[in-house]
Amino acid sequence: MAKSDQTIQITVPLGERSYPIFIGRGLLQSSSTLEPFVTGSQVCIVTNETIAPLYLNTLVAQFEGKKQCDVVILSDGEQFKNLDVLSEIFDVLIDNNHHRDTTLIALGGGVIGDMTGFAAACFQRGVRFIQIPTSLLAQVDASVGGKTAVNHPRGKNMIGAFHQPHAVFIDINTLETLPQREFIAGCAEVIKHALIEDDKFFYWLLDNAQKLFSLDEEAIKYTISMCCSIKSNIVGLDETEQSTRAVLNFGHTLGHAIEAITHFTNYLHGEAVSIGMFFAACLSCKIGKLSEQELRDIYQCLVTYSLPTALATAIDFDDLMKYMLSDKKITENKLKFILLDRIGKAMIKNDVNEVLLRQVFNDAQNYQPS
Amino acid sequence: MAKSDQTIQITVPLGERSYPIFIGRGLLQSSSTLEPFVTGSQVCIVTNETIAPLYLNTLVAQFEGKKQCDVVILSDGEQFKNLDVLSEIFDVLIDNNHHRDTTLIALGGGVIGDMTGFAAACFQRGVRFIQIPTSLLAQVDASVGGKTAVNHPRGKNMIGAFHQPHAVFIDINTLETLPQREFIAGCAEVIKHALIEDDKFFYWLLDNAQKLFSLDEEAIKYTISMCCSIKSNIVGLDETEQSTRAVLNFGHTLGHAIEAITHFTNYLHGEAVSIGMFFAACLSCKIGKLSEQELRDIYQCLVTYSLPTALATAIDFDDLMKYMLSDKKITENKLKFILLDRIGKAMIKNDVNEVLLRQVFNDAQNYQPS
Repeated sequence: MAKSDQTIQITVPLGERSYPIFIGRGLLQSSSTLEPFVTGSQVCIVTNETIAPLYLNTLVAQFEGKKQCDVVILSDGEQFKNLDVLSEIFDVLIDNNHHRDTTLIALGGGVIGDMTGFAAACFQRGVRFIQIPTSLLAQVDASVGGKTAVNHPRGKNMIGAFHQPHAVFIDINTLETLPQREFIAGCAEVIKHALIEDDKFFYWLLDNAQKLFSLDEEAIKYTISMCCSIKSNIVGLDETEQSTRAVLNFGHTLGHAIEAITHFTNYLHGEAVSIGMFFAACLSCKIGKLSEQELRDIYQCLVTYSLPTALATAIDFDDLMKYMLSDKKITENKLKFILLDRIGKAMIKNDVNEVLLRQVFNDAQNYQPS
Repeated sequence: MAKSDQTIQITVPLGERSYPIFIGRGLLQSSSTLEPFVTGSQVCIVTNETIAPLYLNTLVAQFEGKKQCDVVILSDGEQFKNLDVLSEIFDVLIDNNHHRDTTLIALGGGVIGDMTGFAAACFQRGVRFIQIPTSLLAQVDASVGGKTAVNHPRGKNMIGAFHQPHAVFIDINTLETLPQREFIAGCAEVIKHALIEDDKFFYWLLDNAQKLFSLDEEAIKYTISMCCSIKSNIVGLDETEQSTRAVLNFGHTLGHAIEAITHFTNYLHGEAVSIGMFFAACLSCKIGKLSEQELRDIYQCLVTYSLPTALATAIDFDDLMKYMLSDKKITENKLKFILLDRIGKAMIKNDVNEVLLRQVFNDAQNYQPS
């Protein structure tokens, strides 16, 4: 594990689109860190009304007297991640004459990162952007890999682009102001990275939940850097998800359907993914891949992190199925699921039977560890 | 020149994104031409209310009984090239469960091509698309090079992506239904290609306007293939406009400003570009590059094709300047202009003086050939 005062640097290996991720304490205050990545004379910071009062001034101060620095403050929440709200970013950029050499900076959670990245991908057909993720979920997942998007009323992340940031700055101090519920939701993506790629990390997480909840610096840095490394390696092998990158969608096929059907308001992304992961784990067990013991361990881990394994209010399976059938992983009308061969090893299962899905969905909703 | 019955094929050389352009008669009727480029089981044709009654049934018939074929019919006109109307394409794709292996087909002019291409770039972060340009402007310009976009109220093509089509089919029969005004506007982009790259082609155009207006098959095929070849070569050297590709914007800096300031309703794109080209030619002459005789030839050519060289109604230069200062070619707040070194050779001029621009603008508006 890294020492307390050390900033960790991880490189996402994507050839000429490679970029660094810095993980440390107080990065937001240190102008020397950001400066080399903002080459033009214009900057536009995109944030939301929750984050702005906490960190915006600190960030703006870095550019005062040096760059033209404009700010967009969006409404906070997944339900605002749509084309209409995206337009607000374009309005500010155009009203303030931002040019092709501007730099957009995403200051916020996953929604801000996805929207700012997509705006950067489209504005004048592509400008630079930097991510400063302030939620655990964005730090361990949304900030790595260049997937940017907005939602469509009928589907999550349906409209987007692959657009890599020029750098990512993870200031772990920002976790101190993160609401507990969002921290927990972020833990779902942490557990996901462990489940698909690293069994040792999974069992470490099972044993060290309290350290994470108390924001123990070494534990937090270890966790974030493990997730960024796992995701970087996967993305480096398959940037545009032609094949193996799909394993990162473990838990997301059902998760996205739950989010869309509840209009992105009832469940945080991580909560929906948690339910989706447990469902996928049950399916993995049902087809004889994952052992009963491993399924119990996964259940135990999710419960330890106060994450849901079943829906709070029933949703009709047929409705969920309808949403899953518009999932981005579908080709030739066949549902593809990411399952677990074992804890620490994901597999892609094509053409999953609907009858089986329905049965496993019911099992997962009523699961009781023996 | 190509024989009458021959389909010409030009390849746009972009490595793994290379694609063919077919130029011929009756390509819309011939299913064997399109088929190899539609590999999935789903197709979505995007067209507009003007083109739909003319060619939609012919195209749809090619997929009947073979593919899921959905249709989006948009309002016709540059003023509908915006994010709101773009959403209509996403709605149809999502309502009909289109997946990542779908193919979008743009059937129409430049607006349809730009919007369909941008929808294809963003839907599920990128799907295949095919262009069937039905206007001269789209055939000689918009269909080549992968620039896709929608407009922002304050700027043309401000929101977009580079996304190459998988194939382009130019059926010259479609020119028979094209309104005269639009045919003429398309000639502006034809003349542009000649001016920036090929003096022989320019003087051929000056001598052969009547052949083009009468839709002489050999002359039309020659003209379209010349333009596609010129543009393909330029795009092949600089796909994402890091440098030399900018010469294709000759006439467009002022042209885009005129379009935006008149809310995309008064001037067709080609008409605005024609005014912009003549302005840029005057500027080229003023700084001692283009000769007075060449300027007269350019004026003569535009007039021969019934194209405007000046605004029909005065627009204040300061207003135009404001729009030009949000042009995409600007970096570090310096206006960049595409000028002519001579007829057939473009040059990029950085940091053009505003006083000079104003003076030349007045000269161009009041130009009389001696």
